[in-house]
Amino acid sequence: MTHKNQITSKIPVGILGSTGSVGQKFIELLAEHPWFEITALAASERSAGKSYRDAAHWFMSSPIPEKIADLPVSDCTPNLPCRIVFSGLDASVAGKIETEFAKAGYIVVSNSKNHRFDSDVPLLIPEVNPDHLALIRTQQYGKGAIITNPNCATTGLVLALKPLNDLFGLEALNVVTMQAISGAGYPGVASLDIIDNMIPVIRNEEEKVESEPLKILGRLNENHFEPANFKISAACNRIAVTDGHTECVSVKFRKKPSAQEIIGAWDRFSAEPQYLNLPSAPKQPIHYFSEDDAPQPKLHRMLGNGMTVSVGRLRECPILDYKFVVLSHNTIRGAAGGAILNAELLVSKFPGIG
Amino acid sequence: MTHKNQITSKIPVGILGSTGSVGQKFIELLAEHPWFEITALAASERSAGKSYRDAAHWFMSSPIPEKIADLPVSDCTPNLPCRIVFSGLDASVAGKIETEFAKAGYIVVSNSKNHRFDSDVPLLIPEVNPDHLALIRTQQYGKGAIITNPNCATTGLVLALKPLNDLFGLEALNVVTMQAISGAGYPGVASLDIIDNMIPVIRNEEEKVESEPLKILGRLNENHFEPANFKISAACNRIAVTDGHTECVSVKFRKKPSAQEIIGAWDRFSAEPQYLNLPSAPKQPIHYFSEDDAPQPKLHRMLGNGMTVSVGRLRECPILDYKFVVLSHNTIRGAAGGAILNAELLVSKFPGIG
Amino acid sequence: MTHKNQITSKIPVGILGSTGSVGQKFIELLAEHPWFEITALAASERSAGKSYRDAAHWFMSSPIPEKIADLPVSDCTPNLPCRIVFSGLDASVAGKIETEFAKAGYIVVSNSKNHRFDSDVPLLIPEVNPDHLALIRTQQYGKGAIITNPNCATTGLVLALKPLNDLFGLEALNVVTMQAISGAGYPGVASLDIIDNMIPVIRNEEEKVESEPLKILGRLNENHFEPANFKISAACNRIAVTDGHTECVSVKFRKKPSAQEIIGAWDRFSAEPQYLNLPSAPKQPIHYFSEDDAPQPKLHRMLGNGMTVSVGRLRECPILDYKFVVLSHNTIRGAAGGAILNAELLVSKFPGIG
Amino acid sequence: MTHKNQITSKIPVGILGSTGSVGQKFIELLAEHPWFEITALAASERSAGKSYRDAAHWFMSSPIPEKIADLPVSDCTPNLPCRIVFSGLDASVAGKIETEFAKAGYIVVSNSKNHRFDSDVPLLIPEVNPDHLALIRTQQYGKGAIITNPNCATTGLVLALKPLNDLFGLEALNVVTMQAISGAGYPGVASLDIIDNMIPVIRNEEEKVESEPLKILGRLNENHFEPANFKISAACNRIAVTDGHTECVSVKFRKKPSAQEIIGAWDRFSAEPQYLNLPSAPKQPIHYFSEDDAPQPKLHRMLGNGMTVSVGRLRECPILDYKFVVLSHNTIRGAAGGAILNAELLVSKFPGIG
Repeated sequence: MTHKNQITSKIPVGILGSTGSVGQKFIELLAEHPWFEITALAASERSAGKSYRDAAHWFMSSPIPEKIADLPVSDCTPNLPCRIVFSGLDASVAGKIETEFAKAGYIVVSNSKNHRFDSDVPLLIPEVNPDHLALIRTQQYGKGAIITNPNCATTGLVLALKPLNDLFGLEALNVVTMQAISGAGYPGVASLDIIDNMIPVIRNEEEKVESEPLKILGRLNENHFEPANFKISAACNRIAVTDGHTECVSVKFRKKPSAQEIIGAWDRFSAEPQYLNLPSAPKQPIHYFSEDDAPQPKLHRMLGNGMTVSVGRLRECPILDYKFVVLSHNTIRGAAGGAILNAELLVSKFPGIG
Repeated sequence: MTHKNQITSKIPVGILGSTGSVGQKFIELLAEHPWFEITALAASERSAGKSYRDAAHWFMSSPIPEKIADLPVSDCTPNLPCRIVFSGLDASVAGKIETEFAKAGYIVVSNSKNHRFDSDVPLLIPEVNPDHLALIRTQQYGKGAIITNPNCATTGLVLALKPLNDLFGLEALNVVTMQAISGAGYPGVASLDIIDNMIPVIRNEEEKVESEPLKILGRLNENHFEPANFKISAACNRIAVTDGHTECVSVKFRKKPSAQEIIGAWDRFSAEPQYLNLPSAPKQPIHYFSEDDAPQPKLHRMLGNGMTVSVGRLRECPILDYKFVVLSHNTIRGAAGGAILNAELLVSKFPGIG
Repeated sequence: MTHKNQITSKIPVGILGSTGSVGQKFIELLAEHPWFEITALAASERSAGKSYRDAAHWFMSSPIPEKIADLPVSDCTPNLPCRIVFSGLDASVAGKIETEFAKAGYIVVSNSKNHRFDSDVPLLIPEVNPDHLALIRTQQYGKGAIITNPNCATTGLVLALKPLNDLFGLEALNVVTMQAISGAGYPGVASLDIIDNMIPVIRNEEEKVESEPLKILGRLNENHFEPANFKISAACNRIAVTDGHTECVSVKFRKKPSAQEIIGAWDRFSAEPQYLNLPSAPKQPIHYFSEDDAPQPKLHRMLGNGMTVSVGRLRECPILDYKFVVLSHNTIRGAAGGAILNAELLVSKFPGIG
Repeated sequence: MTHKNQITSKIPVGILGSTGSVGQKFIELLAEHPWFEITALAASERSAGKSYRDAAHWFMSSPIPEKIADLPVSDCTPNLPCRIVFSGLDASVAGKIETEFAKAGYIVVSNSKNHRFDSDVPLLIPEVNPDHLALIRTQQYGKGAIITNPNCATTGLVLALKPLNDLFGLEALNVVTMQAISGAGYPGVASLDIIDNMIPVIRNEEEKVESEPLKILGRLNENHFEPANFKISAACNRIAVTDGHTECVSVKFRKKPSAQEIIGAWDRFSAEPQYLNLPSAPKQPIHYFSEDDAPQPKLHRMLGNGMTVSVGRLRECPILDYKFVVLSHNTIRGAAGGAILNAELLVSKFPGIG
């Protein structure tokens, strides 16, 4: 008997920032979700009062789900007909609004950066640190809570590193990213800046990639939190790819394994979302390609419905120990899909929370 | 008095592999050259006997120079009306043909990889190791000779490293490249493979980037050659940019300088091609950008007519010492333009050689 | 009771040219087909004898279906274990091989151009001219037969025109296409030719677009075939889009309707594949968008699983009567998906043929 | 003796809207201009008071000219130290500001659309309707004046049509454009909207292309102005090309010529800017390509320094008389370069006006 069977009627959920690019992805991914049903859409005051169809400049590649198109959009005040809200709010407003919702008793499942480093807020990847979810018991919000998922460039990277860190211990990590334009939201990157071009910077991104993995791979002892202890160097670039962040990684381990041991660790990796059979959990969290020209964003970003992380080109590194390439879908695994998986874990662990 | 003035009538030169992409770039760059005049065009037997206009599928963005269009194309046998030949031959045939030309007394200025690691062949960047040119005296070819320029991803990198290695001593170098499609020749990369995509491998390229810098930055003592001694790790990627290779570099020095010392070293760098005022030498071999989003291929690849290497985003590296970004034009500085500068250095040092 | 229910075990089918781009799309679309099961894969002699996994350079965005990957590839001789074969053969060999298969009793469902204008071969779009299927009774192949689908740029266009021609009578048609790179197969268009560029010609394409619609929209009286009688002018261009051909159309009618009548004709259009509930038939063959910036390839090519034709921007034309924009998925509706729908119609009309 | 020699010290000019994309192109093209020297830069109040270097997000592919970088930016009030001002102002403010400058005695050479259809304002292409310049004598602005150049999609088209209209008389013109992203300014088109996509609409563009040619090709009799009399139908599309608008044209003539007569008309075409040897006038205003795959934006947009219009693929049209393809550089010939040529014509006809 799966959890799916235990839930007989769907849990109502709301979406904050529902007209933006992350909000649209939430809607697309939740349209046929077996557990959740969108009952509330919120956005800025400019959109409030309109139907979703009129408020959003929809640009997903599937049409607006029929049942969503005519829902009214409200503003982001905490009186939505649901308990769980997904937040795709812009960082400029997310901090305050998410706090208000949590204080009002809502469970806020956020993709925004604002609360990621709050000491009592889990920065969660369900396959990596599901135990961190326990932090919400220590939160200041009464019946409300905030959980967050990491930056889109962090998520795939940390997932690929998780089994290696468990088995061999990370000592140093160098990563150079080639990130998709959808990571910048809409309108985001101007076409004049990226066609026949690349941009060798994504502002504030390297800081995130150099800090978030340490929190996620950290250890929670009672209520004492100990971040992971290894060095990270990141260089972040924007390239002309619509979806899918590719990362060239080199790592040094405390105990250098063989290449076969690394591939074995990836191939065997399975974690709580897989055991719990969560609806958005991919069968295989990490897929290693033995072909020498994989992974590639266009070919492999949709593996596991965009929730599997692809890895390839494992080879020795003359400076650190090994080099490899990681690819993950930035708006699914790295944003809306990751947040939904977080909510699924939450509901599974705290039945009745919705 | 410049060398330009010393040369009163132009030196006849030939082009091997004249219909390919490197060959076309040679023609474009030499069309108005003050020292050299193209008098011979050679290509595969398929093209031999045709006029250049008919033999070449020309795809440069300027038209075929009028005086070239009607030149006949001959096959690659060493009876061309010139002494210096530029070679843009494919690696599958370059080794044998270049050897034949050198044995027949020609000076072969090659962009191909085949002879780069011959112990008596200089792998030359005029601003970096002009003294290596002396190696040709030790060659086995009688009056002929072969000189080579490095791989397109090596050249810009080594130029940016040269003043730093001189002053602070390189100990380790990590480089991740994002290379333009023109580096693969024509037809080269299929559009279905690169539009909305990137390819995380360029076959045999990492080996070149991990070995060529050690020869170029090595030391020639008498006839004893000592390669440079530092570790290099390279990861090479293809992205949807027409021209201009961008590289994310991190370095460790024997003696860690301040950021200001590094920028100063780049700003002050000038070398023999600049002193000699060689026609293709950029005024400034290296340009450092203080803007946080530079260099970018579309904006900066043509700096110094495509011969200046652009550097930016110098910052501390948590693992090695510093990180920065290098950009250079792969078909100009990294191929045809680099070979022409090599020939200019040669003619300048060995007057009368043409 | 649907046809789906009438068929209890799947019909074995083979694929000629299975390793090419159309062949791969056939495999992707047939992998979960309710009626057909791939039992034979054929390709050139170079591939024969290998497993499909080894023979094909697979570049679809979903992985090779597991049950296909290990199937052996045979050469294209007519001894495959099936009666229906889909042909994605290159035009340079399709004519002869398809004839051989038909003579040997196979039903050849071809995407190739070679037999499209044979007087006894239907050039079929199931929503447009299903009655033309009767032509196969007049074929010279005994128990075998050949049916073809049109060029990828013709199909979407003719579908959009069908209800208008029925109701208002076409007199003249001007069409300018902007076609996706996947239409040229693999490797097809060189990236150097199309990134930051467009190509204002597709060789032999305008001839197809100017002639195929007249056969498809022609009338079959007994065994006398009468092509449609209107003028077509086509200009075909290649642009940097992966999938989805967009066409700017202007038309003159024998009897000029109102814009509302045209939109009504599109909205109401439904045809035999919809009545028969064929598995690949989209619910809505034609979708008209009232938004002023639709259809767009990235957003709308997958409508109806790639089988719906999108139309938009209907407006008066100062020269002819009306202008509008048509979009259809060139490798699904315009190639493999169209051929599969043809086979579904065939099986539905001639039960037991497989 | 050329005009160049007649002008001994340069004419001071100002640029309105100097920080925008058209403004930047004005600066790039005027940096080394033999007649004009930029002495004043104006922009919105947000930029006023800063140095140009600080005010502009410069994105031309050559660096900011040194002498420009430190010029102060003022606001757009008519007290600039020059008499001629080039206007690259946004249409939302251009109408009012340009009128103010003209009333204050400035000669406004505008690229904006606002005054194009004022009955006393010339809509000028120097090769096409130089006599329309006489209209400025009828203007209401005293010593000031306004002259305009057409929309970027109109200019190349009308230039290509000029000799044909003169000789054979246009009766109908159908044009489908594929326009570059730079035509939308900066930031302009979002990359998410155009990578792997095209957009089948450019708002208000078809109206311009359907009306401007009639004014430009119209006849000025005394002070009576008679627009040209033929039908135009336009469909305008945006594609993923950085620079260069390509247009598929079909035309009907009053007197149908042979294809050779048309090509001859293009080849022989030369006009007043060429006779006057204006600095920005290309030697050849129109270049016809006999190759079947030309013109292409990447290869041919820079012909004649971006001022030559390329034409190719002349062939019969089954509906109208002939079809062909026109390409012109939208930000040079179609915007800043066109305006500069207008100013050169003005200065040449009205010496001393600067």
